[in-house]
Amino acid sequence: MDKLLTNSPVIILVEPQMGENIGASARAMKNFGLSELRIVNPRDGWPNPKAQSMAVGAVDIVDKALVYNSLPEAVADIEYLYASTSTPRDMNKDYVLSRNLKIDLSGLVKTAIMFGRENCGLTNDEITLANRIITIDTAKFCSLNIAHSVAIVCYEIFQQQFKGDDRPDLTNSQQPATKEELSYFLNHLVVTLEQKNFFKVPQKKQQMSRNITNIFSRIDKLSKTELQTLMGIVNTLTKK
Amino acid sequence: MDKLLTNSPVIILVEPQMGENIGASARAMKNFGLSELRIVNPRDGWPNPKAQSMAVGAVDIVDKALVYNSLPEAVADIEYLYASTSTPRDMNKDYVLSRNLKIDLSGLVKTAIMFGRENCGLTNDEITLANRIITIDTAKFCSLNIAHSVAIVCYEIFQQQFKGDDRPDLTNSQQPATKEELSYFLNHLVVTLEQKNFFKVPQKKQQMSRNITNIFSRIDKLSKTELQTLMGIVNTLTKK
Repeated sequence: MDKLLTNSPVIILVEPQMGENIGASARAMKNFGLSELRIVNPRDGWPNPKAQSMAVGAVDIVDKALVYNSLPEAVADIEYLYASTSTPRDMNKDYVLSRNLKIDLSGLVKTAIMFGRENCGLTNDEITLANRIITIDTAKFCSLNIAHSVAIVCYEIFQQQFKGDDRPDLTNSQQPATKEELSYFLNHLVVTLEQKNFFKVPQKKQQMSRNITNIFSRIDKLSKTELQTLMGIVNTLTKK
Repeated sequence: MDKLLTNSPVIILVEPQMGENIGASARAMKNFGLSELRIVNPRDGWPNPKAQSMAVGAVDIVDKALVYNSLPEAVADIEYLYASTSTPRDMNKDYVLSRNLKIDLSGLVKTAIMFGRENCGLTNDEITLANRIITIDTAKFCSLNIAHSVAIVCYEIFQQQFKGDDRPDLTNSQQPATKEELSYFLNHLVVTLEQKNFFKVPQKKQQMSRNITNIFSRIDKLSKTELQTLMGIVNTLTKK
């Protein structure tokens, strides 16, 4: 049983509270062949001895984890982002159940999966950044321990290699745009729309911006070239 | 997501060392619709406040857990017993991989799954009592946190009910835009871009229009409302 997962996705913990959960998540990652951990604003600072102690044989993953001050920085180079959440949100974004998960393991698309805080998960703004939502189907009591969520998702990714040949098709040969590049475009769009008085009701600006982010985040495998096209469209439309 | 698992198997923890792991196991059980926990000789005695605290919403499972002095007593009424172990043993007993698990949920066979100690798992003598072994397929680092093992096995039991049914994943609730509506938007966009001299090289117009259609056609489940937002964006950007 010496199977290695090549091109495994990145796991991102967003504002985790307990070092124990960071360590337990790292251990589960290593059990299932994942290796790259990123952490956004861990509550108790970093490094955290409790994380190292709970990681057991996966202390290397904890030691080389990257820590970020904000989620946009943590996902800057990511090309396909999943948000793991147990609560269906009133948001126009597709869910995939963990048992049907088909992560790209070809290495062509830099993929990450983010998990939220122990007490309240991910915010709607954070989920908006994702291409897709992963939901673990549960009984009525749906509040999963965060490290259990990480363990189950990593487990499914590892098992996926052995379930038939269900790797997703990769027909788009163009280089994918990163989340940072998309974010740059979206900022430009929102600023331009604001100048044009698109957000007539100031209280609704945040929600409307979120809707716009959500629409463009769901373009399947948006390439760098296509993002340039979108930028060109916005600039052309704005011309007098 | 209010699914109940009827006739769910019993989970047996054999000489667990840390109360936290007992509580985390109970939580995972409840997440996946299991309810009956048995504990053989917990190292730190019983009841254990750490188990109750880690159980969160599953404290009822901890509180009604039965504690035994020996494994034979704990399995006395069990008709089919699984042993969960990550280490292949030199023993003439069938293995089933967790991803292929098919537990009897009919209620006709009283079933239990036992998990061993944090530091050394189950002894060969204990495994001998089992009808079958469950193994969670892992990467080289196969030492799973005990509560993660419980979580993954309970997860597989719960998912088992839904495997083979082609129920679609949960999707967003907004009404999807039709291809005709999208086409109307795209025509409007291309005409507007043409007026603004976006297609500087006439021979390339067709290919560029096709690229634009391609980008917007790949937005995963674009809704009518979102299409209106896109239309609003184009019209706003075009305003003088």
